[in-house]
Amino acid sequence: MSSAKQGGPVRPATPVWRPLGSEEIQLTGGIWQRKQRLNTEVILGHCESWMERIGWTGNFDRAAAGTIGTGQLSTGQLSTGQLSTAQPGTGHAGIEFVDSEVYKLLEAMAWDLGREHSAALEDRYHALAARVAAAQEQDGYLHTSFGRPGQPPRYSNLEHGHELYCFGHLIQAAVARLRTGHDDLLPQVARRLADHVYDEFGPDGRVAVCGHPEIEMALVELSRATGEPRYTELARLFVERRGTGTLGPHPFGQQYFQDDMPVRAATILRGHAVRALYLACGALDVATETGDRELAQAVRRQWAATVARRMYITGGVGSHHQDEAFGDDFELPADRAYAETCAGIASVMLSWRLLLETGDDTYADLIERTLLNNVLASPSADGRAFYYANTLHQRTPGTAEGTATADSHQTAPAAAPARAADGVVARDGGAGGGVANHRALTGIRAPWFDVSCCPTNVARTLASVGLYFATASDDGIQLHQYGDYRVSTTLVAGPVTLQVSSGYPADGTIRVTVVEAPSRTPLRLRLRVPGWASGACEASEPPAARTERSLEFRRIFHAGDEVRVAFPVRARATYPDTRIDAVRGTFAVERGPLVLALESPDLPPRWAVDELTADPDSIATDESGAVIDVYRGGAAPDDWPYRARPDGPATERARTRLIPYYEWSNRGPATMRTWLPLAARPAPAEGPAA
Amino acid sequence: MSSAKQGGPVRPATPVWRPLGSEEIQLTGGIWQRKQRLNTEVILGHCESWMERIGWTGNFDRAAAGTIGTGQLSTGQLSTGQLSTAQPGTGHAGIEFVDSEVYKLLEAMAWDLGREHSAALEDRYHALAARVAAAQEQDGYLHTSFGRPGQPPRYSNLEHGHELYCFGHLIQAAVARLRTGHDDLLPQVARRLADHVYDEFGPDGRVAVCGHPEIEMALVELSRATGEPRYTELARLFVERRGTGTLGPHPFGQQYFQDDMPVRAATILRGHAVRALYLACGALDVATETGDRELAQAVRRQWAATVARRMYITGGVGSHHQDEAFGDDFELPADRAYAETCAGIASVMLSWRLLLETGDDTYADLIERTLLNNVLASPSADGRAFYYANTLHQRTPGTAEGTATADSHQTAPAAAPARAADGVVARDGGAGGGVANHRALTGIRAPWFDVSCCPTNVARTLASVGLYFATASDDGIQLHQYGDYRVSTTLVAGPVTLQVSSGYPADGTIRVTVVEAPSRTPLRLRLRVPGWASGACEASEPPAARTERSLEFRRIFHAGDEVRVAFPVRARATYPDTRIDAVRGTFAVERGPLVLALESPDLPPRWAVDELTADPDSIATDESGAVIDVYRGGAAPDDWPYRARPDGPATERARTRLIPYYEWSNRGPATMRTWLPLAARPAPAEGPAA
Repeated sequence: MSSAKQGGPVRPATPVWRPLGSEEIQLTGGIWQRKQRLNTEVILGHCESWMERIGWTGNFDRAAAGTIGTGQLSTGQLSTGQLSTAQPGTGHAGIEFVDSEVYKLLEAMAWDLGREHSAALEDRYHALAARVAAAQEQDGYLHTSFGRPGQPPRYSNLEHGHELYCFGHLIQAAVARLRTGHDDLLPQVARRLADHVYDEFGPDGRVAVCGHPEIEMALVELSRATGEPRYTELARLFVERRGTGTLGPHPFGQQYFQDDMPVRAATILRGHAVRALYLACGALDVATETGDRELAQAVRRQWAATVARRMYITGGVGSHHQDEAFGDDFELPADRAYAETCAGIASVMLSWRLLLETGDDTYADLIERTLLNNVLASPSADGRAFYYANTLHQRTPGTAEGTATADSHQTAPAAAPARAADGVVARDGGAGGGVANHRALTGIRAPWFDVSCCPTNVARTLASVGLYFATASDDGIQLHQYGDYRVSTTLVAGPVTLQVSSGYPADGTIRVTVVEAPSRTPLRLRLRVPGWASGACEASEPPAARTERSLEFRRIFHAGDEVRVAFPVRARATYPDTRIDAVRGTFAVERGPLVLALESPDLPPRWAVDELTADPDSIATDESGAVIDVYRGGAAPDDWPYRARPDGPATERARTRLIPYYEWSNRGPATMRTWLPLAARPAPAEGPAA
Repeated sequence: MSSAKQGGPVRPATPVWRPLGSEEIQLTGGIWQRKQRLNTEVILGHCESWMERIGWTGNFDRAAAGTIGTGQLSTGQLSTGQLSTAQPGTGHAGIEFVDSEVYKLLEAMAWDLGREHSAALEDRYHALAARVAAAQEQDGYLHTSFGRPGQPPRYSNLEHGHELYCFGHLIQAAVARLRTGHDDLLPQVARRLADHVYDEFGPDGRVAVCGHPEIEMALVELSRATGEPRYTELARLFVERRGTGTLGPHPFGQQYFQDDMPVRAATILRGHAVRALYLACGALDVATETGDRELAQAVRRQWAATVARRMYITGGVGSHHQDEAFGDDFELPADRAYAETCAGIASVMLSWRLLLETGDDTYADLIERTLLNNVLASPSADGRAFYYANTLHQRTPGTAEGTATADSHQTAPAAAPARAADGVVARDGGAGGGVANHRALTGIRAPWFDVSCCPTNVARTLASVGLYFATASDDGIQLHQYGDYRVSTTLVAGPVTLQVSSGYPADGTIRVTVVEAPSRTPLRLRLRVPGWASGACEASEPPAARTERSLEFRRIFHAGDEVRVAFPVRARATYPDTRIDAVRGTFAVERGPLVLALESPDLPPRWAVDELTADPDSIATDESGAVIDVYRGGAAPDDWPYRARPDGPATERARTRLIPYYEWSNRGPATMRTWLPLAARPAPAEGPAA
């Protein structure tokens, strides 16, 4: 099957391991299948409905009809506040890069259709793609915010206009369509668009880049999917131009859009986190396709330093609300973690590329950590609301009284789910923090945002998430992620089908059942050993090879053969590096790959998450989380919070439950913390070791 | 002299203590006189020169000439980025509230002239005031950004337009002129303007408030200075309307501009810190003049809760960069402290009002703490650069390679001081944090900002700072702040002149020498005992009354009599409340009223502030700071910063100096921290007390 062989979201020319296509790997149960079904059944429609109602999809119709730029919006125009640039009377709804949300939804639909056919979804997909295509101009340009009468000229605001960024998302949507076996309308639109961009920005075009990286990886992927080398050539130019000062000044500094230094000169990711990570993905794609080892090495080095010094325990990245940016080394405040959902997704995209390029299991660890503990925290259990920022510490319960940006009655679709927060909100759910009864929305998920990149990014990620679980090689299969899924592909020696079953992540036992395998050639079956299980996993048979981070079985397998591996998923304490000031004197509790959280509904009445300490020696594993002893009392009076002596020890004890972090805030507004202050007598300085 | 009796920046109708006027109290030496001289000799001219060069002062000329709103700027137009709303072709330089910077400079000049006459400064003052006055319209309205052809209509954007905010600053400048004995041009302008505002927004006008509180306290003060009660009546309306939803939605939530609930219903300050504090000042002024005890009590309660839970040890307030706002209770990250200079100044303004209203010495403590450790940290030692945000922890040295917002060559005045950072920068000096060699300006002071409220606010504060040092009562003098100054006023029994001398804050001995005193009536001389000196101060004679927070001497004094009080200013460790997550497991070092800081230039070569711990038992007092043992070593490898065991103890020791926090960053780009991690073996949980 040609479609199956085209691979998943990334397909390097010469990977260590070959990514599987959507017909080669299917989730069959467990948490990920449940989330993927939620995506198919709820999230896709939720995004589609919102964008229809508030006019973002209609922008394409108005562009095709020639009324955008001059017409009046009849419905759904955003009340914008300062986070949005929509202008009354322009006929354009939303900020200037809302096209990209429609493209990410198309990408999500394409992956979903590749995974499981649905005539109804297929119809919706084609209808949406046709509306996009109709807005494409004669020369291939396609953007609803620029270039028409009454709009700013094309490419007149590369710093903030997001034109190439939107193009990149359209191209990625087209690549998803190609990779799932269909070279139809959207891939045609994407080629014409990419050709236009090549003419405008290629070797004979203007020397410029977009303020928001994204098109780089999209172009390389389009090259991979179509065989057209010019797109990679263009991506290379964009990567090489970055950091050479082609962009004008940015209020947050040039590192905000990574124009502060050439990509290959940087030693760490910095600036706006999503921008930095999308750029790193593009740079690595360019390096891979052009054999640019120096550039690949630069990306690996940057990512290693970033992981070591600028990543939250959840895999979230980006410490700053103000500029949605990486902080300094070890600047990782739990209570002001931005840890944007899109940055987590971008991080998975980068780690996946690095895993394919290097075969290093630590990248699969990062994917697992980030998917489970950052990305999965975004959608609510019902799939109708999302976190944009994923804090690790919520001090005051979120309120659902109103919204921060817009009058909810003005903008909420009538058909939207009944939810108190049915309004468009500022991107981090209201940044003010603040007292319990203010009107800004904090601490709870919102159905939509004025900058609503996260819901559609979640959608495309969930639609394709199974494709990150395993890869193929000439003679074997590598299992990178665990859960319930079926792999069915063809190796050199013939077809292989495996069924992976487990109760993971709650249970650590992984069963791999062979359904079909070459009868006369040994099959290599390689399982990643998660970092936390290193040296502590058990197998049902002796592996042929064993490293700290992998188990490899290699023999003739017969149908019905089963290999079992058990990872210890008991709850454990994890301590932060002493250089992370924000969480000094605390510990987190992890259980297998899950970061756990203490949420207020689990506390005794009248206990507050911000007044307690906890004892790591009291941790016991619970069905899906843990239980732990917590203490309170001993705090000093409420006058001046800086005193001549440390506060006294706690006086009351209780035993409480910890839940998986990603499940938090699904039981109503709550407070929460992941880092628990150590229950210890205030330690007088004992002096260091001699 | 009538002018002397008009008092300082605040003059309530019925204060517990009477504020002194600029002719009644004069700094005569020490740090505050040095800073005040720096203000007179450098800062005033620095602000004046910058605003002239970049067209902010010229806005008034263009408004008077009728060319604003349509004309082209010939010079100095800001390169604005997203923080500024200046539009090419509008003839208006800078964002919409730059008028207020000219007014704050005028206020600073007025206080400075009241303090010490200077013909040259008087000329500059009159010239500037005349240019402002020329822009006033027939009906009293005066704003260079609104209402003329080509500009938005008057009062068309109360949420963000800052019209009444600017008026408030003009009125405060006029009040400074009145209080220093001159009822000339600016007071006339202010009366006409206030009358206009009364007509527009008074009992028969529109029911609305400004998005940025400020005019409330200005109007009450104008009532106090002119005797016109309508201005207080108007201020009362503005205070009562706040929190009733007259403002449209704000992206950061309604608490951003305190429109989330009525002033008297709030229990703590929240939202944008400067807005919250200016509003609290205005509310208290209204309460004081109208005898509204409930409102006064509400402000006192809010401030007490804010001080207990939302104030940095430096007195700085505002934890959030994004919205320049208060955080949640105990959300006080040292490394992301915004602690805006203007918020510190506003805090001093509020504490001063509360001190006059209540006589409670803790407010004088707050004034001292905030002036010395937050406000004074803003201006550089040479007075030519300023911090907007005052972080308590600098992780990477600031760089002076360029600026964040604007091309420095385009906007820097040719005559500006030779400083690498000669450019207009984002208000917090570049929010990106980030790597050492990026182009954004972080960690060092900047000569000017696109929103440049802080330099002029520092100027007006330094020009009038002596007026906060002492007050009079019928039969005595209260000394609230210490340093070197002379008080000369008239009590019921006759004239009194005192000379206060000390090496404070480095030295804790205060000498009060009587120069003149009533010969037959006892003089009451009351000295505040700072909180840190409570129970530990010594006096040269037995006080007539003594409380934990005050010493009161009362006898017939003769010329030449001296009273000496000694406060223990030795360096000491201070521990944070356990609820402040961001600084758990650390301590600060204070010396007298000074917060000390560890700055990289004082460390041994190759030691970094972010790798060390310190031992509070090793603190020794130094001439103006302290010395302390610090340790390093023992950190884990640079891979994944969350581990199964706490990092090991330190292995190397050094002795290092701590300097007053306000002096930091005057020896070139540096790293710094105020909260020092406790040098202790990682403590296994010992369990709480039974």
